[in-house]
Amino acid sequence: MNRPPRIGADVALSDLPGWNSVEGLEAVGRSFRFETFSAAFEWMTRVARAAEAMDHHPEWRNVYNRVDVILTTHDADGVTELDVRLAKIMDSAFADLTR
Amino acid sequence: MNRPPRIGADVALSDLPGWNSVEGLEAVGRSFRFETFSAAFEWMTRVARAAEAMDHHPEWRNVYNRVDVILTTHDADGVTELDVRLAKIMDSAFADLTR
Repeated sequence: MNRPPRIGADVALSDLPGWNSVEGLEAVGRSFRFETFSAAFEWMTRVARAAEAMDHHPEWRNVYNRVDVILTTHDADGVTELDVRLAKIMDSAFADLTR
Repeated sequence: MNRPPRIGADVALSDLPGWNSVEGLEAVGRSFRFETFSAAFEWMTRVARAAEAMDHHPEWRNVYNRVDVILTTHDADGVTELDVRLAKIMDSAFADLTR
């Protein structure tokens, strides 16, 4: 499968409110906070399914009700449309679960 | 709920082959590696259910087929029997899914 071209973190961030650059990495990051561990893990489960379908996976760290995410495309050595797409899926699942 | 007393990382590790101390933390850690992202997340889902039932949660970081775990008991400011119990659940689920 051809990987999409690298677009760079800055261009990606202009399309991703709530996301931030990641120090020392060509990546975008966001910290998601939930009411409970269960809510956090339910969100992770939804996102995991989408990630698997896209064959594009996050780096993420969960501590209780918090999930810190870093997205980058290793094959492209930077941020691509795949990261933007996965970020938007995460935002949308988050909005859906926390509204 | 009363928290179990702190037993210390060294005592815990003597009961947990495959686990390691964590630099700078009163905690125990292990890195789990799977065939695929799906297998890693299936394991996480099993462990999450057990963690929720125990009301004791891991700190964990997933990148593709790897999950790095840190266990400590914040209420006890160190390692307790709860961490040993959760570590053994993780080991057992891992053995079950990767045999």
